[in-house]
Amino acid sequence: MKGIILIMDGMGDRPLRELGYQTPLQAANTPNMDEMASEGINGIMDSIAPGIIPGSDTAHISILGYDPYDVYTGRGPFEAFGVGVDVVEGDIAFRCNFSTADEDGVVTDRRAGRIRDGTKDIVEVLNTMQLDDFPDVEIIFKESTGHRAVLVLRGEGLSDNVSDADPKVEGNKFREVVALDGSPEAKKTADILNRVVVKSYEMVKDHPVNLERIANGEPPANIIIPRGAGAVPVVESINDKYGLNSACIAETGLIKGICRFAGMDIIEMEDVTGGVDTNLDNIVDTIVDQVRNSSHDFFLVNIDGADEAGHDGNIEEKLGFIEKVDKVVMSKLKELDNVYLILTADHSTPISVMNHSGDPVPMIIRGPEVRRDDVSKFSEFDAAKGGLCRICGGDVMNILMDLMNNSHKFGA
Amino acid sequence: MKGIILIMDGMGDRPLRELGYQTPLQAANTPNMDEMASEGINGIMDSIAPGIIPGSDTAHISILGYDPYDVYTGRGPFEAFGVGVDVVEGDIAFRCNFSTADEDGVVTDRRAGRIRDGTKDIVEVLNTMQLDDFPDVEIIFKESTGHRAVLVLRGEGLSDNVSDADPKVEGNKFREVVALDGSPEAKKTADILNRVVVKSYEMVKDHPVNLERIANGEPPANIIIPRGAGAVPVVESINDKYGLNSACIAETGLIKGICRFAGMDIIEMEDVTGGVDTNLDNIVDTIVDQVRNSSHDFFLVNIDGADEAGHDGNIEEKLGFIEKVDKVVMSKLKELDNVYLILTADHSTPISVMNHSGDPVPMIIRGPEVRRDDVSKFSEFDAAKGGLCRICGGDVMNILMDLMNNSHKFGA
Repeated sequence: MKGIILIMDGMGDRPLRELGYQTPLQAANTPNMDEMASEGINGIMDSIAPGIIPGSDTAHISILGYDPYDVYTGRGPFEAFGVGVDVVEGDIAFRCNFSTADEDGVVTDRRAGRIRDGTKDIVEVLNTMQLDDFPDVEIIFKESTGHRAVLVLRGEGLSDNVSDADPKVEGNKFREVVALDGSPEAKKTADILNRVVVKSYEMVKDHPVNLERIANGEPPANIIIPRGAGAVPVVESINDKYGLNSACIAETGLIKGICRFAGMDIIEMEDVTGGVDTNLDNIVDTIVDQVRNSSHDFFLVNIDGADEAGHDGNIEEKLGFIEKVDKVVMSKLKELDNVYLILTADHSTPISVMNHSGDPVPMIIRGPEVRRDDVSKFSEFDAAKGGLCRICGGDVMNILMDLMNNSHKFGA
Repeated sequence: MKGIILIMDGMGDRPLRELGYQTPLQAANTPNMDEMASEGINGIMDSIAPGIIPGSDTAHISILGYDPYDVYTGRGPFEAFGVGVDVVEGDIAFRCNFSTADEDGVVTDRRAGRIRDGTKDIVEVLNTMQLDDFPDVEIIFKESTGHRAVLVLRGEGLSDNVSDADPKVEGNKFREVVALDGSPEAKKTADILNRVVVKSYEMVKDHPVNLERIANGEPPANIIIPRGAGAVPVVESINDKYGLNSACIAETGLIKGICRFAGMDIIEMEDVTGGVDTNLDNIVDTIVDQVRNSSHDFFLVNIDGADEAGHDGNIEEKLGFIEKVDKVVMSKLKELDNVYLILTADHSTPISVMNHSGDPVPMIIRGPEVRRDDVSKFSEFDAAKGGLCRICGGDVMNILMDLMNNSHKFGA
């Protein structure tokens, strides 16, 4: 028996006047999802807790069975997981920008002209960085998309309780990083970071990529500005925890990062954008192929387009994308046998809010042994009348593992 | 956008044979509450947790977003908040009775003949109390209603782990207060309390109020008997926690005390009794005026009458009071725009129990962006079919803050 949690990122919504006070999911024509609702048990789910506004990261952490209040130590570590740095316990991770600074350290462009190409080459040079006073500290850079990057410090006696170098406002000098407590670890980490910032400028200001940018009248990516320090959380892998061989089928680095954190295999796909224009055929073909032909027995699938449409406040795109997923993805997934399939969202991204909200999301669990209820449509409203009632994200893995006969009795 | 939590104290109930197995709320004619149910999202709520019997105090603590298991250190501190003592961290507070004792310390009337007048004058004298051996300890008395009072000890090195002086049975001597652990703090606090009890007798046995009572054949309020020690809990104010400017519109000292604990402004009203005879016009006019004309953006409203009727086991009074609130209060509140209005109770006070019970209470949330469900009547039964399903008191503020756009995303 295999299990799939299919998360339609940001799919939940609120009633919209433009849709006759229906949500996009209610108004959408979704015969395959509705069939699945009829065949399954339905409910609503708060991925963290009622009213709490989840990020996609914290929501996925919770749905995968980890407590985000325990393990979510900041953006830095999960960016590091996201870009695929092989972090280890004790590492301190930071989000970074490639920025443009003048020789006095004044940041003239926080995003280095929104640089798109060449950061990989710059990072190659930065990764040779060593600090004379801290020879035991390993300094690891990794480029992300655009002007974004990750910095990981590895060594003994480091702390994540340090301030940001980000000056926030352009035209200011990068900030001196300071220790936020009196510990020697925080002091040492702040010292290291201050040298890393200065040294990054020295090392890459004349990098060929930057010389070419300057020649083209573009701001050079000549300094690294770290922020968002976090100690890398190390947890028992989801495979060990539940006895699984699990895989992640996702479009975005953010979700892949959460799955790497949980120790899952990452299945890469071509042509997926994380937007409403993504290649849904590739996604569903990957899922079906993995379920039928791989040894993986648990899949976390994330499809991101509805969230993007919600952030954009675009009703037609959100509704249309939901219908497209129904037609392209759900029509094929419903043919899978011997699978427990959970269809849900990580959070609501209401059109009216244009950001995440704390509203619960609908959920269906379909599979051979669920207690089917009489819900026959997939929507925020119908789901609330289902047999699952209202559950939390932290309950999902336990419920799925029980159904998959992959769980153990607690007690006698 | 403003928010109101309107709590009908003790409104929840159980089915009554006398009402054809309906609850008072089901049987009552409540067109305005029913309209609100139709326009809102409905559910049932356990103010603490399913089956736990809440006090009005612990229920309100939970609904306001604090964990009563963390902060509810006893009746003393909340009585102190209730009577308006400006407590600070480290204070130890006690409930007290004005009692009648003879010169051997035998308590002949625990409630001093249920004294109603004059305690304020007696407290004026008691507040000059100083103990020679503990010159650094401040001793603060404050009268409450009838024979009740509050004692607060302020100083270094005090503990709330001390026994009661209350002899429980009249005709016994007041009890010696003892330390309940081996700490020097508990020992010191017990010593202080023992002296306070003796000294209270010395200071007020010949107080003019008492001489007059003796002359009238009434038991004098000549001794203070403390019990219910608790360290005053100090929490982040609800305003700081949620970014609010909040106010309390309540009838009773108990609820005002909880709201003072949470750092809310207290709006005083004339002519409100906490009973079924209270002036509901004054209450609703205060709410409407505050919502329309004050800078407050969040209100905790408590109307107490249904609880009193429940404690009295009086079906007609409970049903009649609910109908009166519907007619006088809800008819006007439903006209308020740009408000999220939550209508609920803090606990059930079933007629058959004549005390609080652990049954959940019905809840409606009405406001511009809620996911309206198809519930069209306000009752314990209809609410259970609504879109909120079943939530806890500790979820309420998070849900309301999310709807009011007053909350922050956790994660990315």
